[in-house]
Amino acid sequence: MAKKKECVKLLEFWMSPFSRRVEMALKLKGVPYEYLEEDFPKKTPLLLKLNPVHKKVPVLVHNDKILSESHVILEYINQTWKNNPILPQDPYEKAMARFWAKFVDEQILSLGFMSLVKAENGIEVAIEETRELITYLEKEVTGKDFFGGKTIGFLDMVAGSMIPFCLARAWECMGIDMIPHEKFPELNRWIKRLNEVEIVRECIPPKEKHIERACTKL
Amino acid sequence: MAKKKECVKLLEFWMSPFSRRVEMALKLKGVPYEYLEEDFPKKTPLLLKLNPVHKKVPVLVHNDKILSESHVILEYINQTWKNNPILPQDPYEKAMARFWAKFVDEQILSLGFMSLVKAENGIEVAIEETRELITYLEKEVTGKDFFGGKTIGFLDMVAGSMIPFCLARAWECMGIDMIPHEKFPELNRWIKRLNEVEIVRECIPPKEKHIERACTKL
Repeated sequence: MAKKKECVKLLEFWMSPFSRRVEMALKLKGVPYEYLEEDFPKKTPLLLKLNPVHKKVPVLVHNDKILSESHVILEYINQTWKNNPILPQDPYEKAMARFWAKFVDEQILSLGFMSLVKAENGIEVAIEETRELITYLEKEVTGKDFFGGKTIGFLDMVAGSMIPFCLARAWECMGIDMIPHEKFPELNRWIKRLNEVEIVRECIPPKEKHIERACTKL
Repeated sequence: MAKKKECVKLLEFWMSPFSRRVEMALKLKGVPYEYLEEDFPKKTPLLLKLNPVHKKVPVLVHNDKILSESHVILEYINQTWKNNPILPQDPYEKAMARFWAKFVDEQILSLGFMSLVKAENGIEVAIEETRELITYLEKEVTGKDFFGGKTIGFLDMVAGSMIPFCLARAWECMGIDMIPHEKFPELNRWIKRLNEVEIVRECIPPKEKHIERACTKL
């Protein structure tokens, strides 16, 4: 599908985990792209034009095609540039990657962030509930290098951008070590491995810059 | 991928649009399955065992594989039984079907139901905002028999199960004609066509039974 003289642009925001994962996929596939930075929470006329429905980053522009919603974009990238596949061929394994990616973006983001900020039943209850969810991922990654197997894939990009490189930094601002090593040895091993992957390192925001911004907002 | 002596079971609830769309896909593919009815809002031990993460229908059991989340299940069905594809091959068209399906389940369900019930800014504002969202779908289906083209596909199953055969009935209970013909002629034409498709008719709950139950709850 890849053609010469392709034009790929990514409209994104450096703190957004949804943007970070799309960048990881483009880098893994070796697709050159132009990076267009949004200045969140402002919305540029370009963003409003390209994503009138959600008005959110990331937006991928591929020649005359415009795509938004990070899972949709990741699937598109995977089908368009076929090298270094990020989803398994097997229908059930593929379904599981999609299932857990959805779980991360819906359940863990919702409970692990919103509930903590509100913490209506107390912060300890919110932490315990979030850890119960994280336990599912601990089981999923057990015995594997990455969720995707030997190399990073769809779920590593979704969970990686969201958990260690976004939520964990927000939790740190709140003084919470949500994924302690003794409770989640497999996830901590996975996070260490993620940090060793060059394209992941290239895509994640500098921790100090991230924490400074996140702590200001919390 | 289809093999002899396959065992397919679908754990579902007759009022659930998420269940209805999975049934449509199985029927379109001609996959025989055993229907296991949940008695919502009770949760059977079988449901809790098969879907411990979300504890929700639908759950598809295919031999030793267990799947939940309706979009994930639909994609699995489409890849496993390859006849009568419900998603286009083209990566961008596929992305668009996924994008609008997500839009239906997140934006329209949320605004078009939850906001109406609450209607904090008044019912007229909530109706107008919901219609603004529906306008996107009116544009998408313009000039086509179905969202999927000449035959029903992924987005027809998601939007069909959710809008005309679920939300519109709840809106009717509230005395609201949310999709008036003069404002949404294309969607009304699509709904009429959907009603003419035999497998759709087989899958949707009888209107009187549905309305009786929905009106009791609202």
